[in-house]
Amino acid sequence: MSTEMSTDQNAELFELAQQLRVDAVRAADAAGSGHPTSSMSAADLAAVLLSRHLRYDFDRPDHPGNDRLVLSKGHATPLLYAMYLAAGAIDDDELLTFRKKGSRLEGHPTPRIPWVDVATGSLGQGLPVGVGMALAGKCLDRADYRVWVLSGDSEMAEGSVWEAAEHAGFENLGNLTLIVDVNRLGQRGPTRHGRDLAAYGRRLRAFGWHTVEIDGHDIGAVDAAYEEVRGVTDRPTAIIAGTRKGRGVAAVEDKEGWHGKPLPDAAAAVDELGGRRSIRVAVHKPADAQPRRAGGGGDLVLPRYDKGDEVATRNAFGEAVTALGTARGEVVVLDGEVGDSTRAQFFSKKHPERYFECYIAEQQLAAGAVGMQACGYVPFACSFASFLTRAHDFFRMAAIGEADINVVGSHVGTAIGQDGPSQMGLEDLAMFRSIHGSTVLYPSDANQTARLVAEMADVRGIRYLRTNRGETPVIYGPDEEFPVGGSKVLRSGAKDELTLIGAGQTLHECLAAADILAEEGIAVRVIDLYSVKPVDAGTLRTAADQTGCLVTVEDHHPEGGLGDAVAEAFADGRPVPRLVRLAVGTMPGSATPQEQLAAAGIDAQSIAAGARLLVEKAVIRPNPAA
Amino acid sequence: MSTEMSTDQNAELFELAQQLRVDAVRAADAAGSGHPTSSMSAADLAAVLLSRHLRYDFDRPDHPGNDRLVLSKGHATPLLYAMYLAAGAIDDDELLTFRKKGSRLEGHPTPRIPWVDVATGSLGQGLPVGVGMALAGKCLDRADYRVWVLSGDSEMAEGSVWEAAEHAGFENLGNLTLIVDVNRLGQRGPTRHGRDLAAYGRRLRAFGWHTVEIDGHDIGAVDAAYEEVRGVTDRPTAIIAGTRKGRGVAAVEDKEGWHGKPLPDAAAAVDELGGRRSIRVAVHKPADAQPRRAGGGGDLVLPRYDKGDEVATRNAFGEAVTALGTARGEVVVLDGEVGDSTRAQFFSKKHPERYFECYIAEQQLAAGAVGMQACGYVPFACSFASFLTRAHDFFRMAAIGEADINVVGSHVGTAIGQDGPSQMGLEDLAMFRSIHGSTVLYPSDANQTARLVAEMADVRGIRYLRTNRGETPVIYGPDEEFPVGGSKVLRSGAKDELTLIGAGQTLHECLAAADILAEEGIAVRVIDLYSVKPVDAGTLRTAADQTGCLVTVEDHHPEGGLGDAVAEAFADGRPVPRLVRLAVGTMPGSATPQEQLAAAGIDAQSIAAGARLLVEKAVIRPNPAA
Repeated sequence: MSTEMSTDQNAELFELAQQLRVDAVRAADAAGSGHPTSSMSAADLAAVLLSRHLRYDFDRPDHPGNDRLVLSKGHATPLLYAMYLAAGAIDDDELLTFRKKGSRLEGHPTPRIPWVDVATGSLGQGLPVGVGMALAGKCLDRADYRVWVLSGDSEMAEGSVWEAAEHAGFENLGNLTLIVDVNRLGQRGPTRHGRDLAAYGRRLRAFGWHTVEIDGHDIGAVDAAYEEVRGVTDRPTAIIAGTRKGRGVAAVEDKEGWHGKPLPDAAAAVDELGGRRSIRVAVHKPADAQPRRAGGGGDLVLPRYDKGDEVATRNAFGEAVTALGTARGEVVVLDGEVGDSTRAQFFSKKHPERYFECYIAEQQLAAGAVGMQACGYVPFACSFASFLTRAHDFFRMAAIGEADINVVGSHVGTAIGQDGPSQMGLEDLAMFRSIHGSTVLYPSDANQTARLVAEMADVRGIRYLRTNRGETPVIYGPDEEFPVGGSKVLRSGAKDELTLIGAGQTLHECLAAADILAEEGIAVRVIDLYSVKPVDAGTLRTAADQTGCLVTVEDHHPEGGLGDAVAEAFADGRPVPRLVRLAVGTMPGSATPQEQLAAAGIDAQSIAAGARLLVEKAVIRPNPAA
Repeated sequence: MSTEMSTDQNAELFELAQQLRVDAVRAADAAGSGHPTSSMSAADLAAVLLSRHLRYDFDRPDHPGNDRLVLSKGHATPLLYAMYLAAGAIDDDELLTFRKKGSRLEGHPTPRIPWVDVATGSLGQGLPVGVGMALAGKCLDRADYRVWVLSGDSEMAEGSVWEAAEHAGFENLGNLTLIVDVNRLGQRGPTRHGRDLAAYGRRLRAFGWHTVEIDGHDIGAVDAAYEEVRGVTDRPTAIIAGTRKGRGVAAVEDKEGWHGKPLPDAAAAVDELGGRRSIRVAVHKPADAQPRRAGGGGDLVLPRYDKGDEVATRNAFGEAVTALGTARGEVVVLDGEVGDSTRAQFFSKKHPERYFECYIAEQQLAAGAVGMQACGYVPFACSFASFLTRAHDFFRMAAIGEADINVVGSHVGTAIGQDGPSQMGLEDLAMFRSIHGSTVLYPSDANQTARLVAEMADVRGIRYLRTNRGETPVIYGPDEEFPVGGSKVLRSGAKDELTLIGAGQTLHECLAAADILAEEGIAVRVIDLYSVKPVDAGTLRTAADQTGCLVTVEDHHPEGGLGDAVAEAFADGRPVPRLVRLAVGTMPGSATPQEQLAAAGIDAQSIAAGARLLVEKAVIRPNPAA
């Protein structure tokens, strides 16, 4: 595709780079905000990539042979959008809508733009997401597209970058190239390593990478570096390019205080850069390619469990996702070195080619899933619920990026027992509910779990499944259906005096409490709220109308979980029933599962005790917020 | 303190190591769970450290000269507690309470034990927390204690370890030693690098560390390594020790499938290890030392703002924390390379010796604060609210570890404007509210911010302050008080038809809406709910009784924030008023701040429109959960 450049080609590329700078300056000037200086440093790197090394069909962003370009330094959108203009993908009028209401050319890139695969803007995410894409290309698609990640130097401080560097080095991802725009200046001043290119090179090489250190404004050197890395196929590659922020405009070049600001005199800057140009680049198109799907194509035969058997929902997850993988070749599973606990390991034994061990690196786990879904896969990313908090920022960004991923958190709540609070998921419902557009599922039974695993795979957005460590009785038949957004009313009668609402472990405690109360002549309704988000507001409202009091019971902290989900169903001004939250309000220690539930006041005896008082219209608990 | 060992000493240390193994086996056997094999691999490392290199007064855990020992591989508590027994700090009866209800000897260590400074159990946290301690020792206390972090090999995959490695290398933390117990086996099988000690050494050296690679079962080599690292003072040091999981018991040694399980035959294992011993170690005590506090001692002179002025609360934070630092030498500030945005930079200019630039590494930012508070400091850790999600797991663990830290998140909500959703804190209230024992503050005005900054510093636990990017009018006088757990009723009358509840930016929108409504003859109450957790339930209940309808308005996703906090005040079975949540239910793009608020339906006009319908008893919004 490219050979050594002539002097003319070199001059043409310089002109293109200047055009990218000019257009970046103009876009930010029109917006009155944005990051032109961070764009100008990388303009030569971008110009040479776009003209000579990227293979991308802008008319077919879903072309399976397209390279992937991830702008990890997501604030440098003026550069990205100037590239789109140069490629003829957008016109100049659209460029000047940058950062305006309704424009798809946002401050940081999102997939509202068809050529953007993933949202960036939280630094340090581009490389781990790129690792996910490169794994898909190498291990799943077995295609020869390349993943290019354009990164800033500041973001190399993020641990997520080193999780990714380790993963890429270990997996010999020769289809991945990181371009580090070492412009020396972060947001508030010099970076840790300034212009010390070797500092970055030394670190990456220690992680198994091939590195090239160059002057990022030397067009010939930039081209040679791209040529070199395209020839390396046995390991990931990095081009570490020394550059100058604001390159080309003396008023700002290599100067502090110009991060994230339009240039002081845009017209003068455009003049200094040689004026506007209208170069159009014919970007190399990829060779024809067909997406490859390893495996799949069988019928979906979900596991079936007998009522009354004791089965941990994590086991049902492991068996169900394995069945799903047999039926669908696009289903992949990632795990953070706890597959024996999450039961993701079941999948690894049946479908080893679609199982990705991420070791103890939850950010890479989440980012890998995001990268793979961008390549058309349906990932399930698994760890302990508690450790998924490590990847919170990745889930947040995944939602911005309209990513469709499944996340599975096991070992939830105090019910895990002796291991103590560090291993207990007690904040996971709050975390996943607060993610925009998310789905949060919390099954109590093995058949329900299996059904929900199959169903969640086709929901849009971030879908979270919360599974239990311990065994719980199977209470549903294998053919029962559990739509997302639904619930099950398990005990109901005309004389119900209140409603107990549980999910997962606490549903069984609610059922046992209802039995205790029934023997005392107190009828209570019991709702299985397996779909925590979206929540079945209709059933909750009916229960409120008919019983007057809703009691949520959750093995989770009081904030943001089941109690909040139920309260939200009444947050539109309608009359509200009496609401009571039973949740984990204290810090657990080590104890047996049953001791833990009792200590937290969420076991059957505690629930029954509370219900007795409530039906006598007394208030049973001090308000945890008071 | 130590010199080259004699053969006798070597033999004694072997006996001690065997004792640690025996006691670890016994503790896990008594508990019926736990991690003896992960303890046995590190027993020689622990025995030599305890006997010959650690300086620690078990009778005075608060001794300012004590070394710090952080068990990053927190599951290896059988080893840690066996060390306590050998040091005479606990007795054998207590050892055998391991993992039982009520015992302080939990599955993973917490500061319920006086010799534990920080909770561990989420892997990859020990080193970054140790970096915080080492920074305190070197830069603040200027003491000569050493920080020892005992880590597993699996956890070296966590990005947080590399944030810490970078920070420690860059700051030349010669008082920090990482001991990596390379026992080859993670939870579910072999680690990425197996026995390749050089893989770890190469990486750490690239980050500026001095490393020693040894056989971790060769007592002499272990002692020599400790001796060597104690002599290195210009950079952090790592002992990379090759070991065998389950060392000393053939049934489990170096075998897969024995992670986190008691030994199959504990009595036989104890025999194989040479039986019980009762060696007591006289641990070296530290030299007398006085804690040193740099600066402080002035009066607290908080900034004062004039009513009607326009001041961003982030600016008031920066000025207030600077004043607090002038008054109190134990106040330190950490920032994630956004100090010019969070205004932490104000502090850096006045108190540079107590300002810690963490670059873009939010996990290290949070862990640094945790480490420093363990050394008696009062840290404020600052970043964009959105990026604090990176450190969620560290805040969770900090709460388990009873850490007292202040966290400040700026640039919250859609009101930041053009930068778009990646930079908007829209989940931060949910995240911090769900942390056990946390305090969540959200001021709307500069004087209020200044007061809350001073107040939060003395609250226990994780305290979060949410600040705005944009300017808001000063509405309170500088002498007004704002107790944590309080609120302010800003508009109130006998004829109030509903109550608007806001905080931060949305309080001003609520006030403007109240003005619009007042002109139309509709009286509404307005509450400034600046203390989101704990929440002022009394004032909310009075408003409910008197107005019948509470409308929360928040620049945050609908889940887990202000709306949840208000709902929780009625979650004890008492009668509930009508509740309405106005929040950010859609995904924002780029737009001006005012356009963003309007698009989210949380500006004054939208609030007024909703209130008009509500006072006509209509329901205004479809339920977001429906």
